[in-house]
Amino acid sequence: MYRTHTCGELRLSNAGASVTLAGWVQRTRRMGGMTFADLRDRYGITQLVFSEEADSSLNEAAQKLGREYVIQVTGQVRERESKNKNLPTGEIEIVVKELRVLNESVTPPFTIEDETDGGDDLRMKYRYLDLRRQVVRKNLELRHEMAFKVRKYLSERNFLEIETPVLIGSTPEGARDFVVPSRMNPGQFYALPQSPQTLKQLLMVAGMDRYFQIVKCFRDEDLRADRQPEFTQIDCEMSFIEQEDILEVFEGLMKSLFADLRGIEMKEQFQRMTWADAMKYYGSDKPDLRFGMPFVEVMDIMQGHGFSVFDGAKYVGGICAKGAATYTRKQLDQLTDYVKRPQIGAKGLVYARVEADGNVKSSVDKFYDQATLQQLKAKMGAEAGDLILLMSGDDAMKTRKQLCELRLEMGNQLGLRDKNKFACLWVVDFPMYEWSEEEGRLMAMHHPFTSPKLEDVPMLDTDPASVRANAYDMVINGVEVGGGSIRIHDAQLQAKIFKILGFTPEKAQEQFGFLMNAFKYGAPPHGGLAFGLDRLVSLFAGLDSIRDCIAFPKNNSGRDVMLDAPAALDQKQLDELMLVSTAKKD
Amino acid sequence: MYRTHTCGELRLSNAGASVTLAGWVQRTRRMGGMTFADLRDRYGITQLVFSEEADSSLNEAAQKLGREYVIQVTGQVRERESKNKNLPTGEIEIVVKELRVLNESVTPPFTIEDETDGGDDLRMKYRYLDLRRQVVRKNLELRHEMAFKVRKYLSERNFLEIETPVLIGSTPEGARDFVVPSRMNPGQFYALPQSPQTLKQLLMVAGMDRYFQIVKCFRDEDLRADRQPEFTQIDCEMSFIEQEDILEVFEGLMKSLFADLRGIEMKEQFQRMTWADAMKYYGSDKPDLRFGMPFVEVMDIMQGHGFSVFDGAKYVGGICAKGAATYTRKQLDQLTDYVKRPQIGAKGLVYARVEADGNVKSSVDKFYDQATLQQLKAKMGAEAGDLILLMSGDDAMKTRKQLCELRLEMGNQLGLRDKNKFACLWVVDFPMYEWSEEEGRLMAMHHPFTSPKLEDVPMLDTDPASVRANAYDMVINGVEVGGGSIRIHDAQLQAKIFKILGFTPEKAQEQFGFLMNAFKYGAPPHGGLAFGLDRLVSLFAGLDSIRDCIAFPKNNSGRDVMLDAPAALDQKQLDELMLVSTAKKD
Repeated sequence: MYRTHTCGELRLSNAGASVTLAGWVQRTRRMGGMTFADLRDRYGITQLVFSEEADSSLNEAAQKLGREYVIQVTGQVRERESKNKNLPTGEIEIVVKELRVLNESVTPPFTIEDETDGGDDLRMKYRYLDLRRQVVRKNLELRHEMAFKVRKYLSERNFLEIETPVLIGSTPEGARDFVVPSRMNPGQFYALPQSPQTLKQLLMVAGMDRYFQIVKCFRDEDLRADRQPEFTQIDCEMSFIEQEDILEVFEGLMKSLFADLRGIEMKEQFQRMTWADAMKYYGSDKPDLRFGMPFVEVMDIMQGHGFSVFDGAKYVGGICAKGAATYTRKQLDQLTDYVKRPQIGAKGLVYARVEADGNVKSSVDKFYDQATLQQLKAKMGAEAGDLILLMSGDDAMKTRKQLCELRLEMGNQLGLRDKNKFACLWVVDFPMYEWSEEEGRLMAMHHPFTSPKLEDVPMLDTDPASVRANAYDMVINGVEVGGGSIRIHDAQLQAKIFKILGFTPEKAQEQFGFLMNAFKYGAPPHGGLAFGLDRLVSLFAGLDSIRDCIAFPKNNSGRDVMLDAPAALDQKQLDELMLVSTAKKD
Repeated sequence: MYRTHTCGELRLSNAGASVTLAGWVQRTRRMGGMTFADLRDRYGITQLVFSEEADSSLNEAAQKLGREYVIQVTGQVRERESKNKNLPTGEIEIVVKELRVLNESVTPPFTIEDETDGGDDLRMKYRYLDLRRQVVRKNLELRHEMAFKVRKYLSERNFLEIETPVLIGSTPEGARDFVVPSRMNPGQFYALPQSPQTLKQLLMVAGMDRYFQIVKCFRDEDLRADRQPEFTQIDCEMSFIEQEDILEVFEGLMKSLFADLRGIEMKEQFQRMTWADAMKYYGSDKPDLRFGMPFVEVMDIMQGHGFSVFDGAKYVGGICAKGAATYTRKQLDQLTDYVKRPQIGAKGLVYARVEADGNVKSSVDKFYDQATLQQLKAKMGAEAGDLILLMSGDDAMKTRKQLCELRLEMGNQLGLRDKNKFACLWVVDFPMYEWSEEEGRLMAMHHPFTSPKLEDVPMLDTDPASVRANAYDMVINGVEVGGGSIRIHDAQLQAKIFKILGFTPEKAQEQFGFLMNAFKYGAPPHGGLAFGLDRLVSLFAGLDSIRDCIAFPKNNSGRDVMLDAPAALDQKQLDELMLVSTAKKD
């Protein structure tokens, strides 16, 4: 062992002790005949002192230490004269007697500080230096702790962590698979799992009763911001349970994580909201409930007054922004520009201020008398000082989604989206299907194994688009952190669902034959869910991106710039795989 | 919830309680007007009783239950008349009041019993049924427990579990990589990691201090018995430590696993043996020390007596099998045949029995007088009733390996390799290099980042083949369960090692440039090791194969016969990847 203590360990009570520390030189500075160095390791920073007077050659050696040199020192712990209250070790320093340089360092390409001068690309290329920064390191520490606590919670509740294979078969349905050519089976390919969905269902058929796994999953998608080609799920499944049991177990898990990792005791049951209500009141299946500002529909009040934009609309609705009547014309114009951006695509925005005397002044006053506006005010629950913002459109769902963006922006502007406040919610009763314009057919909203609500089963034949599923998402602060469903365990019902999804019996057999076959041998009722670990950690850490809670993330082109992967293969490797690449060489 | 209790939970103290259970029908039997059914779930088996008298239609329904039907029953717990002491629930039964068939089952292709009539192939194809068997399931339960306890032990010692990427770059050195074509970077490939070796070293450079990960690794090798293309490692690395620290931490881990999972307290320090001694005395770098029978070299005694086989040999040595003088001529011939098998390739075997009166009778008596044989007896430590077995050859190492096989076989025959006895050992001081006939050069015995022993560094220039490494293996019962080394943290020494391994500076840069570059920025002294989880579980479970501690293993052709993977891809998928397969279609 190169040390007796870590750099985060020594306190005033250790004064007088002879210690050996090892770590990285954060910085050095000279003061008169003294040299001070901050020695850093994962556990903290400890101040080292060298003095000209006591040992001039040692002091000289200390002055030669560069940033990020790896050194070992032996010395005596001493109470500091000027204490640093920001450091746990700030009351002491080490009077160094021996210094050994374990490794030198060339000058790092950016500063190893909480606030660094390194840009994103540079930090990723030198990720091993970036990870030395406390702000990045603590995310990985949090991730470790969260994963461990999840395992502990679930293990205590009889869940078994079972590893499912990474080299499985490809399923053309859904997102694109990463594939792996098999050398021993030329012309054939494995696929990397997008999730262990079917495997965990097989584990339920196998009688494993309660399964979980913290597991890497893979999706070869064009990477939008904040997606990674490989990501980690907390994947769970239970047998002989109903939806309520799942919600209870995993709400409990989340509460225990908040208590253990953030010190937040959540005593109340998580709010529950149907998908239909979430869409109606927040225009989103993952509403951010850190603040209210629900949508209010005002067709009854605002139509029929000659304002053609509203009169011709299928939907007129809005939000009431408390205390925002002070918004200037300029701010309101900026809001209008915001919703008109192509990403949102609204036509415009109508606003109405409730003035101090209770009167309402709107941007469309020429169409509405004060009596109507007072009706509006009442329905919106607006009071003096509030700002009412209205939107309208031909397509109610589309308009709600635009209004959702406006609501979130107002939440930001009014400071209602505090990263240290957490609003947890279950969204339930998702529709079984959603219409895909692209495919021209109904698609499974979750996946084809999701069970319909018992009372909606008769509608499968008459009105499949209205059938609700036993599916649920956990939403925190507008982020879908997890989701799942009760599965179909009945082979006949499964066959019917496949048919509605447009699978021929042959295609269903080809793709999911192994699962359908397994279900013939006594499948128990079962269901589960999966959390996105990356997302959960970044939420707990208050990060804007999942990238900083991943040790070695990939960039938006799916590249690891540190490893310089992917890369061209040796021809020999391709030959062994019996593959020819038709891509142009650079 | 479909149940109030599991099938393993009810005891005599629950008698009188009304309960609901759910599970699989293990078997039913009729007795007079009664029907008994064994209901099974992961937690146990509970007996159900139906009676003609109490409810004839219910009894009739019970008689229709087939094997592996999934049912839910409600009834009353009652003390059994004839108790079953082999079952934890054997003192009670459930008098069923309500029966609900949750799912039927077709007849399974093999019996779901500890001793099944299903062959290996059938069991793998229907692995979800095989996993219902208690003997298989308990291996997965053990695996879960072991993984959790490893995490707990390491977390308590400041190790952080850090996920390293699965999609990395290919390294032509070493075993063959599985590769993954990149669609977003056409013509380029990721590789799946054979181990996170370089990544964990980067984490040490990153100051993570103590890392571990229970992680899938991948090797595209031709599969010998008991290898899997994907396998799981407990991968560990530490900074600012020496070899002794690593041995201490991980010996502690192993002892805690034995105590927790097998109830075995190991108080003594694990035995340590140099690689040279292991080869000399056991002909193996992973000796099985559940029994002694070390090799004794007897060139001094046995050469020069006119027995040309020995006289011309570079090595003459043997083992003393206690109490085996009773071996018949037939048994000895079988032993001779055993070592002459092509897999072992010995020329023959000389034996000498120590008779009750202390005289030695050997198969080469015509060359040796009794005085010489008495010398042999003394050197071998043989006593009356023992059997001495001698082998010889031109190549000492080769002969030792043959003698190793003989020793293990004698251990088997004499019942000295008890699966419930564990002999733990550290093999240390491995050579840095081994000569590869195939490559015609020295190869790294561990990997190119292993550090040489400080005192052997001068020999790097003069006699590299004699240089010992700071490398160590943990061996239990003749199985290498883990191994590792102290790494090189000095860029100059690393460059020298690469040179000895025949890497040009350019090739070293190309393959390991990212690591060598990282080492310029202050790499700490570090080292680590990795355990094979599959192997460790199978050792603790007393299994002959690692397959039964893996939920969904692959066969010797690398196929998952349950999923039928790998398989041909859709042409569309290949086109997107810009790949053409030159393999012939079936």
